[in-house]
Amino acid sequence: MSNRTDLLTANARYAATFTHGDLPAPPARHIAILTCMDARLDPAKFLGLSEGEAHVIRNAGGRANPDALNALVISQQYLGTNEVIVIHHTRCGMTGLRDEAVQKLLTERFGGSIKPQQYGGFDDLAQSVRDDVATIRADARIPDDLPISGFIYDVETGRLTEVD
Amino acid sequence: MSNRTDLLTANARYAATFTHGDLPAPPARHIAILTCMDARLDPAKFLGLSEGEAHVIRNAGGRANPDALNALVISQQYLGTNEVIVIHHTRCGMTGLRDEAVQKLLTERFGGSIKPQQYGGFDDLAQSVRDDVATIRADARIPDDLPISGFIYDVETGRLTEVD
Repeated sequence: MSNRTDLLTANARYAATFTHGDLPAPPARHIAILTCMDARLDPAKFLGLSEGEAHVIRNAGGRANPDALNALVISQQYLGTNEVIVIHHTRCGMTGLRDEAVQKLLTERFGGSIKPQQYGGFDDLAQSVRDDVATIRADARIPDDLPISGFIYDVETGRLTEVD
Repeated sequence: MSNRTDLLTANARYAATFTHGDLPAPPARHIAILTCMDARLDPAKFLGLSEGEAHVIRNAGGRANPDALNALVISQQYLGTNEVIVIHHTRCGMTGLRDEAVQKLLTERFGGSIKPQQYGGFDDLAQSVRDDVATIRADARIPDDLPISGFIYDVETGRLTEVD
């Protein structure tokens, strides 16, 4: 598998010049980023983050789903973060994706035993950011005064725009 | 908030030299990485991945939890990935973390209405990787012949080691 060979070669190169082996676990900037798994996004690069500075949670869409909320709780309660930034992006594969369509496709490919799930598709990009900020805000495990902001990343320009 | 100012300044710098606005959504390497949110990990850097090459899913521990599995399904069925690499790491904050302890801490801080959750703590690092590879393998929505491998990233050396 060429991927494995390439990735391990790149990793050996990274390790050869590695100089930050003494970083502590708590993020130096006390911040957690929640964003999409999309391959076009490199949040460390587009936010100027170095190793050790921020937690980065990623899933399909950058949604505040149950496991992302659990991760934010661990980040805050055990590793001292006190700010969250939610970043969705233009041309996201989750735009317009319906759970019913996913279920139909999976049933066709894998048979009738597939359980329906909530995959996190959305129709309105800015609203999906507002919804996730609100979902985090509403979680009883999130401090009431926690700063939470929402942004859209434009995959065609690399630029972030805040969602009001 | 200095974080916001710093991150947006860094983003403006990134956008100023941005040249890959025409990348397609499907990852060029057809691969999805599942790893931890830990601030010390920069998977794009330690795997030599450029924008557009791989999906990156991250949560507390890099666990194959329900939302990570949903993300892998979307990645494979809608965006053409056909390989998964699971990467946990040394000195992970999820080591030894018990759901009961999280619940106790949250109840003390936020009151008695907090619902118990599965946060994904583990005791044995290599076994946690094997468990997550097995969880992905066992999901009825994952093709039987999908290559799935597991690695440990050493935060003190930057080096990956495969888990057998």
